[in-house]
Amino acid sequence: MYKRKIYLEDKPRFEARDEILAAFEVTPEKELIPTVDALGRVTAEPIFAPFSTPHYHASAMDGVAVVAESTYTAHEQNPLHLKLGVQFVHVDTGNAIPSPFNAVIMIEHVQVLDDDTIEIIEPATPWQHIRPIGEDIVQEEMLFPQGHVLRPADLGVLIASGLLSVAVVKKPVVAVIPTGNELVEPGQEMAPGKIVEFNGTVFANFIKEWGGEPRLHRIVKDEPEKIKEALLEASETSDFIVINAGSSAGRKDYTVHIIQELGTVYTHGVAARPGKPVILGKINGTVVIGVPGYPVSAYLALEWFARPLVCKYLGVPEPERQKVTVKLGRRIVSSMGAEDFVRMNIGFVNGQFVANPLTRAAGVTMSYVRADGLLVVPPDVIGYEQGELAEVELLRPLEEIRNAIMFTGSHDLTIDLLSSALKQVRTEMKIVSSHVGSMAGIMAIRKGEAHVAGIHLLDPETKQYNISYVRRLLAGQEVVLYPFLKRKQGWILPAGNPLEIRDVRDLVEKGANFVNRQKGAGTRILFDMLLEEAGLEPEGIAGYDREMFSHLAVAAEVKSDACGAGLGIYPAAKAMGLEFVPVSDEEYDLVMTRSFYESEQFKLLAEIIHSPAFKAQVEKIGGYQVVENAEPKRLAEEVK
Amino acid sequence: MYKRKIYLEDKPRFEARDEILAAFEVTPEKELIPTVDALGRVTAEPIFAPFSTPHYHASAMDGVAVVAESTYTAHEQNPLHLKLGVQFVHVDTGNAIPSPFNAVIMIEHVQVLDDDTIEIIEPATPWQHIRPIGEDIVQEEMLFPQGHVLRPADLGVLIASGLLSVAVVKKPVVAVIPTGNELVEPGQEMAPGKIVEFNGTVFANFIKEWGGEPRLHRIVKDEPEKIKEALLEASETSDFIVINAGSSAGRKDYTVHIIQELGTVYTHGVAARPGKPVILGKINGTVVIGVPGYPVSAYLALEWFARPLVCKYLGVPEPERQKVTVKLGRRIVSSMGAEDFVRMNIGFVNGQFVANPLTRAAGVTMSYVRADGLLVVPPDVIGYEQGELAEVELLRPLEEIRNAIMFTGSHDLTIDLLSSALKQVRTEMKIVSSHVGSMAGIMAIRKGEAHVAGIHLLDPETKQYNISYVRRLLAGQEVVLYPFLKRKQGWILPAGNPLEIRDVRDLVEKGANFVNRQKGAGTRILFDMLLEEAGLEPEGIAGYDREMFSHLAVAAEVKSDACGAGLGIYPAAKAMGLEFVPVSDEEYDLVMTRSFYESEQFKLLAEIIHSPAFKAQVEKIGGYQVVENAEPKRLAEEVK
Repeated sequence: MYKRKIYLEDKPRFEARDEILAAFEVTPEKELIPTVDALGRVTAEPIFAPFSTPHYHASAMDGVAVVAESTYTAHEQNPLHLKLGVQFVHVDTGNAIPSPFNAVIMIEHVQVLDDDTIEIIEPATPWQHIRPIGEDIVQEEMLFPQGHVLRPADLGVLIASGLLSVAVVKKPVVAVIPTGNELVEPGQEMAPGKIVEFNGTVFANFIKEWGGEPRLHRIVKDEPEKIKEALLEASETSDFIVINAGSSAGRKDYTVHIIQELGTVYTHGVAARPGKPVILGKINGTVVIGVPGYPVSAYLALEWFARPLVCKYLGVPEPERQKVTVKLGRRIVSSMGAEDFVRMNIGFVNGQFVANPLTRAAGVTMSYVRADGLLVVPPDVIGYEQGELAEVELLRPLEEIRNAIMFTGSHDLTIDLLSSALKQVRTEMKIVSSHVGSMAGIMAIRKGEAHVAGIHLLDPETKQYNISYVRRLLAGQEVVLYPFLKRKQGWILPAGNPLEIRDVRDLVEKGANFVNRQKGAGTRILFDMLLEEAGLEPEGIAGYDREMFSHLAVAAEVKSDACGAGLGIYPAAKAMGLEFVPVSDEEYDLVMTRSFYESEQFKLLAEIIHSPAFKAQVEKIGGYQVVENAEPKRLAEEVK
Repeated sequence: MYKRKIYLEDKPRFEARDEILAAFEVTPEKELIPTVDALGRVTAEPIFAPFSTPHYHASAMDGVAVVAESTYTAHEQNPLHLKLGVQFVHVDTGNAIPSPFNAVIMIEHVQVLDDDTIEIIEPATPWQHIRPIGEDIVQEEMLFPQGHVLRPADLGVLIASGLLSVAVVKKPVVAVIPTGNELVEPGQEMAPGKIVEFNGTVFANFIKEWGGEPRLHRIVKDEPEKIKEALLEASETSDFIVINAGSSAGRKDYTVHIIQELGTVYTHGVAARPGKPVILGKINGTVVIGVPGYPVSAYLALEWFARPLVCKYLGVPEPERQKVTVKLGRRIVSSMGAEDFVRMNIGFVNGQFVANPLTRAAGVTMSYVRADGLLVVPPDVIGYEQGELAEVELLRPLEEIRNAIMFTGSHDLTIDLLSSALKQVRTEMKIVSSHVGSMAGIMAIRKGEAHVAGIHLLDPETKQYNISYVRRLLAGQEVVLYPFLKRKQGWILPAGNPLEIRDVRDLVEKGANFVNRQKGAGTRILFDMLLEEAGLEPEGIAGYDREMFSHLAVAAEVKSDACGAGLGIYPAAKAMGLEFVPVSDEEYDLVMTRSFYESEQFKLLAEIIHSPAFKAQVEKIGGYQVVENAEPKRLAEEVK
């Protein structure tokens, strides 16, 4: 029906933003709301005080009000006696000072002689201990300009000034329209090829957070007439529209053609990744933002273009993220001519912020959720070398990052439990873990990119775990190898073990599709050793090149294939209801610098590890045993 | 009834906090809520993924699914023909890859020969362009630990995982009880001595912001039985209680005695100012926080003790404020043995953050509202010298402070209008003004503490305004004097001018109570000149020593006294419905460094000043005329 347009533009992001901002010509509406409900709302006009606060001369102390000039002769040698009602009156804090009195003497400095008479021995100065009219707020003073976001104390000022309702900017209504034949509403059955619609909820909540009022539409099928109908309806009832997916240049990407037909397309494609296939246009006088379908692209594009519109409507500046300078743990490559938004994990190790990129796949929502920050690589930069410094925008509070323990190396399911237990005793602490494999874990400790790494590396020579690798790879460094777990490694197989896999030879003989781990993972090294011992070549193993990054990922793959087979730990098989055939008992230990070993953070961690509650929790999973009473090996002394 | 206890403790704040945290033994409740409503809520338990996402091998591209191994021989010189249904199937992005296919070739790389046949000239590698099962989320993976505050994208992850409801920590219920005979509910009439109850609303909104659920009680009279009843009722229905005022050691400060009677008092008084008279205790198993009555004391005490309890209940760390190092524009004196919380204005001038203290009166709510940050002076520090560097906790986003124009010097009502107009064109900009008087304004420019100062200083010799002062006080500096306004100064008098004041002699002869301005204010200098010309002495003027800091404050004072009289500008008199007798037409000009004069910020300001809209607005007030076509005086050249 519509001609296919293959090429998207590469318009600079800010140019595209300025155009759409200029095109967004909606006049903000005001509404009068009760002040008590106005937290976080934006003032629609300057607010002036209708009267002064205090609105009378008020005593600032408990005491007596006097005429200052009549006390000037008071002295220790010349006590003055004052009469109630004539020369003084009693006042408490907050009481009005009646005329002609003009000073307050604290009750502590007054000698009460009888019900009617007091004695003072010090003069009062005019206006002492009196809060004059308008001390806090002077009538006609501007309390807040327009565009002010009301905070708790601001509401107090309004109420104190008798302003029980306040004119605020109405929240802009933003229509959110999800489209796609593959989408099903949350709660509906998910057949293969079907995806639950969740971007809409995310968009709605971002818009809410920015101060807008989202209206989430039901799912619209990929049919031009239905999309057109939804857009036209939304253009009548919202301040602007966000339409999700169909924004690219594929077979069923109708959106750009429809907007062109109904109005104007300003931009189709921006020079930024991920998030490039954006459409910015206008129909029926209403701005439309077409956002790509992959979640990470979508959230970035929403922030680039929807947030400025919400802020423009409200008359508030766009919030800026805190930034921090980090050392890059890995090389980062970017393309010329486009901005790159790289999701980063950030840790505070050895007094320095260290950051590593997460996956750059736009479909991996968890990479956005797990990210501590965004590295925005400008269009004219092709990347950064490992070890270079760069500025990163934070997605979490700096303190949260500073307090996180960076765990790396081999993946183990108990690390999440450890993190939970830690957070329970100390809410400000947590473990941030990345799965890079045992070998990469050791290297991360060496480069100061993580606090602690989990490793399980069998030495084929000595048949010992870990120690020889640490000695070799961390030679001369002050490190500690801390015994943590014994765990069962074995074959992870479809339920019932249909191919009857018992050992590595069976993989070849029975034609299993093997699911491997990445290079440097302890399990991969174990598998290679098994191959070698059996005299087999990697080339003979179907699936040898297919690498997964965790035990769970291996198990998930095995579960989807009746001929699948993997090597991994028992709890991963158990969690997915798969068969497990034990191969070996391995030692999963923790390696860390000596300074981290001696830190308060690790002491707390060690306490949790050896707590009965944690041990019980771990051993309940099965296939685990927490190592007790083993001596941590301080390796620097031996090596030096 | 109760014995008066005069002395409050001076317990270190953190000690008091740790005690009350330990005493707060409430077990947090969980509640299951719809995920779509869970923004900002805190997870009550770790959340694991019930299945993988994608839950099937999904195509990452529009194209054809093939068996990779069957394409290995494809080459430009050896095109392969594949048959639909047997050797390939069509797939769109997101479609499931049917068995036995294991790779996707992009549609752009496929030559369609007929409905059933395609040609390819390149081999596919296994799993290319396929999003494998669990690429985003692997079944049984921990998505979030307990104590995680849910953000928009987190809700997407939950919904994608089929988790349409989520167990969150219930919001802790916090009872807020305002007490005091002087209090009236908002909207009621305010006689002298009566104060509208607004702290309760502020507390409720702070608690809401921190994640609690406030229950605001009606006002309770200062009667022990009524307070007791309110406390006991709240102890049954809330997780903890905040009671406002009565926390000090005065005549009617019953709270501490009541808590002692009903339970335990842990703390009465902390070593921190303002906010010292705090009570921390427990009745009926429920923690009670007695908060002082003055607003600023109250808000600080609430943050010190109520926020940690809310965060403990929720299992989240207390948020920390961003900090910034500032240069102190004035000397700050503090007392030994107690922390001092000094509200500060912060400006970004000449590439440096410069901060000045606001009033330290605990009753001045606006000082908290206007503050950009808090300087926390530790108990063992007696203060800081002017020019010293200190770290300040920010009460506003750093960017907002960085973008503010620091206006100082003489007070004029048009500055607020200018700020409003500026914010309308550029939402991220605003003017922050402090009223220090013309002379102090010039000194602030000299010391680099402000961007621009408003001045109106008449030289008695030359009868010229401003220029001679700037030449003398800013000698050798590159400054610009920018003509801004002509405005009317005159006597501000009660309506109808009952004392018939016409000139300065009348003040003395008719026994007026004069309201003066602070030293260094242009109006004060004018008044002193009038005195001198009339041959009068300051001692002869009743009220000469009573200093106000703005025209509006003078007018407010005059309004409250039938014998009052002040000197000030016409709009201040007009705003309060007072009489105005003109004395002189004065020149209110702006002084700034040359670099600020040449900045984008000032160019924008100048544009607004000379816009017809702004001029119309200013002249509508009356007594003003915006100066047109006058040449700004660049003073460095003349002086050098």
